[in-house]
Amino acid sequence: MTIKFDLLAEDGTARRGRITTAHGTIETPAFMPVGTAGTVKAMRPEEVEATGAEIILGNTYHLMLRPGAERVDRLGGLHKFMRWSGPILTDSGGFQVMSLSELRKITEDGVRFRSHIDGSYIDLTPERSIQIQNLLDATITMAFDECTTFPAEHAVAAKSMQLSMRWAKRSSYAFEARAGYGLFGIVQGGVYEDLRAESAGMLQDIGFDGYAVGGLAVGEGQEQMFETLQATTPHLPRERPRYLMGVGKPADIIGAVARGVDMFDCVLPTRSGRTGQAWTWDGPLNLRNAKHRDDANTPLDPTCECPACQKYDRAYLHHLTKAQEVLGLMLLTQHNLWHYQDLMRRIRAAIEAGTFNAFSAEILASQEPKAR
Amino acid sequence: MTIKFDLLAEDGTARRGRITTAHGTIETPAFMPVGTAGTVKAMRPEEVEATGAEIILGNTYHLMLRPGAERVDRLGGLHKFMRWSGPILTDSGGFQVMSLSELRKITEDGVRFRSHIDGSYIDLTPERSIQIQNLLDATITMAFDECTTFPAEHAVAAKSMQLSMRWAKRSSYAFEARAGYGLFGIVQGGVYEDLRAESAGMLQDIGFDGYAVGGLAVGEGQEQMFETLQATTPHLPRERPRYLMGVGKPADIIGAVARGVDMFDCVLPTRSGRTGQAWTWDGPLNLRNAKHRDDANTPLDPTCECPACQKYDRAYLHHLTKAQEVLGLMLLTQHNLWHYQDLMRRIRAAIEAGTFNAFSAEILASQEPKAR
Repeated sequence: MTIKFDLLAEDGTARRGRITTAHGTIETPAFMPVGTAGTVKAMRPEEVEATGAEIILGNTYHLMLRPGAERVDRLGGLHKFMRWSGPILTDSGGFQVMSLSELRKITEDGVRFRSHIDGSYIDLTPERSIQIQNLLDATITMAFDECTTFPAEHAVAAKSMQLSMRWAKRSSYAFEARAGYGLFGIVQGGVYEDLRAESAGMLQDIGFDGYAVGGLAVGEGQEQMFETLQATTPHLPRERPRYLMGVGKPADIIGAVARGVDMFDCVLPTRSGRTGQAWTWDGPLNLRNAKHRDDANTPLDPTCECPACQKYDRAYLHHLTKAQEVLGLMLLTQHNLWHYQDLMRRIRAAIEAGTFNAFSAEILASQEPKAR
Repeated sequence: MTIKFDLLAEDGTARRGRITTAHGTIETPAFMPVGTAGTVKAMRPEEVEATGAEIILGNTYHLMLRPGAERVDRLGGLHKFMRWSGPILTDSGGFQVMSLSELRKITEDGVRFRSHIDGSYIDLTPERSIQIQNLLDATITMAFDECTTFPAEHAVAAKSMQLSMRWAKRSSYAFEARAGYGLFGIVQGGVYEDLRAESAGMLQDIGFDGYAVGGLAVGEGQEQMFETLQATTPHLPRERPRYLMGVGKPADIIGAVARGVDMFDCVLPTRSGRTGQAWTWDGPLNLRNAKHRDDANTPLDPTCECPACQKYDRAYLHHLTKAQEVLGLMLLTQHNLWHYQDLMRRIRAAIEAGTFNAFSAEILASQEPKAR
């Protein structure tokens, strides 16, 4: 049996669910911290777990280049390698090939690119991507797709989507079903509602354990992202988890949950933690700002229960950030991941209580830009 | 009453002692991790404490420039600022002025230099150094001295030492005694035995709570360092702690303990942790070496009880190091500090048992370079 999805509650089109996998359960809506190269940056795995995260994301592109998929397999799989026993979702590598590598050549067969690490030529096909994810022992494997450029004319987006659908079918053939493991298809089609609906239908004809929405958060803006999402999720099966890839800010997540999304991943909480930004219930806070330097009486977020907020004040975190001390990014990353999991906990509670709309309005108002 | 020093045992000239301060006790011989800018790099304070470290070192030069001594004072002192409640020793700033800043001008009054952070001109005198260390609330304050260049002719070393002795007297005048706080003088004199003996005598005429040996580990080599030490410690009072500044490798520490030194500090375990080097009972280990990449069955040091060795293997640590992941330097720093504290624990136990010579020979043999 594949991964299991139980829909526990609905509030409008927002969904509260539970995914059961070979490596544990995931309460949804869920946020997956990004562990690009076999580590959620600047965090120990037990610290990631303590934030409440139940699943993390690994990047196929990075791991295939270093330490290498066959090596991770020999070493016992990604869970053992990085000491994370919970579920891991791996992306297919397609997105990073487009954003990080050089000399990409896309053919019907797949993508040829040069490694950003050693310059070697590498072919990535749907079959190889699935094989790599299998070698990594991914709990959830993503179909190999082409990330459509943005902006793209309708004809370009259509052609790209059709290629991704053929690759989705090849991904499905290549995937070996195992109990508690799953394969997700990825809806493409740019910002075009007809293409999104067509893509969603084609994926269901193939049949996947979950459905991702790809090719968003690539520059189209929140409004168009929400419109595209709104035109996509109604075409996805109610009884399978839905995953919006690479999203996003808290307001993006709330809006996407309202449109029926169950899973998210984004580098934002970890990356912004490394650049001095903290996410709080009053919106983002820039710790590099000199106004924090004498503030010994306030934690990052007075309502937060994370270890960084329980122990440290803004004056010290400002100092660590200015001095580019490793402890500063450790603490800000920890806080940000905690904040994101807090957000998901509150979202889940609001859906269960049937108060998601009110909760959503309250949070979005508090995150409005203001003089701080 | 100043800090208290109890000499608990002696084994030859090696000493086992206990320093009692306003912020807690320190078992000696002790190693002080370096917390340059208000943080032991890449370590949470509770992780530093868990290694067994009982006292850390803070750098006056860095802290006076950022966040500033007056600010640290307003924020409640360095202990509160960095969440380290145990003893803190601060250096006088003199050494870093020489090694880090630009446009130094040394006069009888003190040193004028340009900040390496913002280029501003700053005067540092014995009085100001002591004031800064008082503002930081240092448990142990160091007298302001000039670090004699190496190599230096006898006449140059003598002149420099005489200046340091006049500054030591001014430091002593400027220091306000408080219960459980102490001021250490610093013996100078280059590699010249007569100057070292003279300096030690002059400092005792002034009277300090402890005596440091400065100006070593600046390029003279282990043999000459040990010779100079051997010519210095007999001139220091038996009933006061002795501190060898900026030293060193495990073999340096063992040799200095044999010559009657009680306290050490060095950036080596933290800095080498950030460059992929682990200290083990078999000598140093370079994690960047490709031979570690498939070694999933061996921790850094099979006999080490640190959290990094309990949880991770060399293959993963090799990967983290190659990928320049923050977690890699967190884990290597943690291991190295643990290893250093283990070394000090074993040294203390050996002195108590009267087996220091045998212990010393065994460790030095195991650290010999060999094909690894």
